[in-house]
Amino acid sequence: MRIGELSERSGVAIPTIKFYVREGLVPSGLRTKANQADYGESHLRRLRLVRALLEVGQLSVATAKRVIAVLDDPGESALRSMGKAAYALGGAFPAPTPAGADVVAPDAATRVDDLIERHGWAVGPGNPARAQLAAAVAAAEALGLGDALGLLDRYAEAAYAIAEVDVELALSPATLEESAERMLVWTVVGDRAMSALRRLAQEAVAVKRM
Amino acid sequence: MRIGELSERSGVAIPTIKFYVREGLVPSGLRTKANQADYGESHLRRLRLVRALLEVGQLSVATAKRVIAVLDDPGESALRSMGKAAYALGGAFPAPTPAGADVVAPDAATRVDDLIERHGWAVGPGNPARAQLAAAVAAAEALGLGDALGLLDRYAEAAYAIAEVDVELALSPATLEESAERMLVWTVVGDRAMSALRRLAQEAVAVKRM
Repeated sequence: MRIGELSERSGVAIPTIKFYVREGLVPSGLRTKANQADYGESHLRRLRLVRALLEVGQLSVATAKRVIAVLDDPGESALRSMGKAAYALGGAFPAPTPAGADVVAPDAATRVDDLIERHGWAVGPGNPARAQLAAAVAAAEALGLGDALGLLDRYAEAAYAIAEVDVELALSPATLEESAERMLVWTVVGDRAMSALRRLAQEAVAVKRM
Repeated sequence: MRIGELSERSGVAIPTIKFYVREGLVPSGLRTKANQADYGESHLRRLRLVRALLEVGQLSVATAKRVIAVLDDPGESALRSMGKAAYALGGAFPAPTPAGADVVAPDAATRVDDLIERHGWAVGPGNPARAQLAAAVAAAEALGLGDALGLLDRYAEAAYAIAEVDVELALSPATLEESAERMLVWTVVGDRAMSALRRLAQEAVAVKRM
């Protein structure tokens, strides 16, 4: 199809599609004439994926590029693809240094190690979520929310229940290429769904207590 | 204290502090001389809060401003503050329209309504997390993850367990001003902690299945 039809079917404006192609988020169309290219269903699909990452997942273009690169080299199983997507996303949170973290951070990293050990989770030292969690812990401590951290174990239990759902989904039948894409989308979209559900449930629990 | 000391104690560069003051994220210091201002412990505290929102929470400056405005008008109870913070944050996800959502979105909103009803949650129609969840659902459907949505009920159960922790925290003893700030921080930082825990747990579950 021409870029005009691609734009119509995807709901993405032509200049935006051109920007995505320039940035390497969407592959180029097949050049047919000097100034014309042909796009297929795979372009439409990729365009939907990119929109989901940027709009629903609120990723930066740079992070979306890194995450999409996983699709070109998905790993030898659906679980590995999920892991690669998660690690690629982790780079989006480059161990920020919250104010005062120079003092608090070493302690925060230890707290994270302890929590992982306490729950008996096998997690590689390179998992970027370690630093992400340590940053959250350091920020909570620096702001006087030390008591919140005692509740983190219950968060961890809930997270484990969710991860079991995620892994089931990864293992549901699909081609390897499909399942890499599925897990990429679900890793990002699932975070948003979870944060939305948390806010809905907060209101439900609060109403009950009022 | 002078701005130099504030910078040293907070670990935030002087030009960055000046930017936050200009943007209204941090109140101005008390002017002492023509070109000198005095800052107190409350400035240090606010600076830490702003850093947590921007760095750990990855909020935009515009969203951070809207969320911080809740502190000036926190609501009459800790639970109300939590709700106000959540609603203010919701604006950060202005019901994006993923590609193809014109077809899928009405159905997605219904799915969200059904889910809330099925779990017996009392949630106001104005809760912005409804649109956030509908956007995630629409994106998942548009990308062929329809089967994932059947698993959303288990996500919802986990979210409820987390919300109970959050509300307990909101109700723990603190002055009203303190607790508004606590809930603001925890709403944002808790999302990051949850997403990090999900990725850690995913690895732990995946390792078990491999």
